[in-house]
Amino acid sequence: MSKAALYDFIRQQRSFLCVGLDTDMSKIPDFLLEHEDPIFEFNKRIIDATHDLCVAYKPNLAFYEVLGSSGWESLQKTIAYIPDTHLVIADAKRGDIGNTSQYYAKAFFEALGADAVTVAPYMGRDSVQPFLGFPNKWVVVLALTSNAGSEDFQLSQQPEGVPLYEKVMRHCMEWASPDELMFVVGATHPEQFEHIRSFCPDHFLLIPGVGAQGGDLEAISKAALNDHCGVLVNASRSILYASKGADFADAARAEAKSMQAAMDKWILS
Amino acid sequence: MSKAALYDFIRQQRSFLCVGLDTDMSKIPDFLLEHEDPIFEFNKRIIDATHDLCVAYKPNLAFYEVLGSSGWESLQKTIAYIPDTHLVIADAKRGDIGNTSQYYAKAFFEALGADAVTVAPYMGRDSVQPFLGFPNKWVVVLALTSNAGSEDFQLSQQPEGVPLYEKVMRHCMEWASPDELMFVVGATHPEQFEHIRSFCPDHFLLIPGVGAQGGDLEAISKAALNDHCGVLVNASRSILYASKGADFADAARAEAKSMQAAMDKWILS
Repeated sequence: MSKAALYDFIRQQRSFLCVGLDTDMSKIPDFLLEHEDPIFEFNKRIIDATHDLCVAYKPNLAFYEVLGSSGWESLQKTIAYIPDTHLVIADAKRGDIGNTSQYYAKAFFEALGADAVTVAPYMGRDSVQPFLGFPNKWVVVLALTSNAGSEDFQLSQQPEGVPLYEKVMRHCMEWASPDELMFVVGATHPEQFEHIRSFCPDHFLLIPGVGAQGGDLEAISKAALNDHCGVLVNASRSILYASKGADFADAARAEAKSMQAAMDKWILS
Repeated sequence: MSKAALYDFIRQQRSFLCVGLDTDMSKIPDFLLEHEDPIFEFNKRIIDATHDLCVAYKPNLAFYEVLGSSGWESLQKTIAYIPDTHLVIADAKRGDIGNTSQYYAKAFFEALGADAVTVAPYMGRDSVQPFLGFPNKWVVVLALTSNAGSEDFQLSQQPEGVPLYEKVMRHCMEWASPDELMFVVGATHPEQFEHIRSFCPDHFLLIPGVGAQGGDLEAISKAALNDHCGVLVNASRSILYASKGADFADAARAEAKSMQAAMDKWILS
């Protein structure tokens, strides 16, 4: 999906919501466990209940890999089920030496058919570059993450007088354009968004940490949106597990609807 | 495997070699492609040909994930086939928010049955800690990697007056003991080993970059070994693809034998 197509879809949906498919066997409703593939059954119903309220889905690989090859199959089926209109972000946080990152890129863009993959930048340029250059695919580099541990290294001052996350972003911006590169910036650092937009006005930001992790949608929208929206806000647990009962899909829809409604006013006509 | 057991096994094998199972469908001998599971067939023969010359195997997940669920099955079969005496390092370079890292830890330690997993430290403490505390399992944190991109961020000076990789190591050493924590330090930075041993004398170092990437085994052994060996040297491509013919396993054995012979003199009796 191109950047222009993504923005068009955001305006059409009146939403910049990304639903995180962190599907956890121990948290899905019991009655689904009777199905041959409970993970896929759950995802299918979540997708059915939310696809008109969001623009992207983000399965986190950990929740599938914990189930071995059957988890990988559930993931393949889930990605195939997501409407072609929606951006599929494989939240994999990969990164390896160039020779190896190339295989991860193929795994996610070709074998799985994802539109985007999250990448960890610690290993530098040749670990990120093999993910670039796939037409209409996106690399989403971890910049400032939503967890407490983001303070250990990402906020550490660098010789250039900027924190590490900013150095990472500035380097990556030299390697790739806003047409194929996004950054992860956690909603738990609202004070950083204005600064980030001062040196990174055009790139899409994928923003986790709203919902279960407590980030504030209003504050983020105010500080982070640009003239082509430029923001995808992810919620996972708050939507998926809004109810553990038979009404889980309705409850997920209500939660997604509430987020979409809050997003509507920020989207230009 | 405990640290003491690992050192005993190193002395028994007269080797601190780790064979990297970066098994690439496009590089294995053609005649194996007729088998139902060429990746497993290749790995099986490499393991048969090298297990008395090494102490560990390190499958890199990228080469299996690129094949989807069937790749995951090949990996499961490979890990089950590796003798219980040997350390199995899942080279996955994972790391996510705590809630999610916990699932990766289960995926590798429980579902796959690996003894160790490589972890990327960019997301900080709560991304690393969920991998700790599994009895006789190991966390191998990326410190200074073997690729050119290691210079982009890992060697950047921090406010504490040390490069980022050292800050990462010092933080991790506060979180875990040498009984469950190792570090990845690439053989392509031989000048750093003496310094690393000055502040990190006891932890095992997993050292990739010997072989195809050009690191020097003698220089590394001299600078990095400690009184319990403390080093695992990995070679992948130079062993796996020593020949592309029917003699590939013999050629792999000859290459592993040559490395083991060079290691012998560094191991105390």
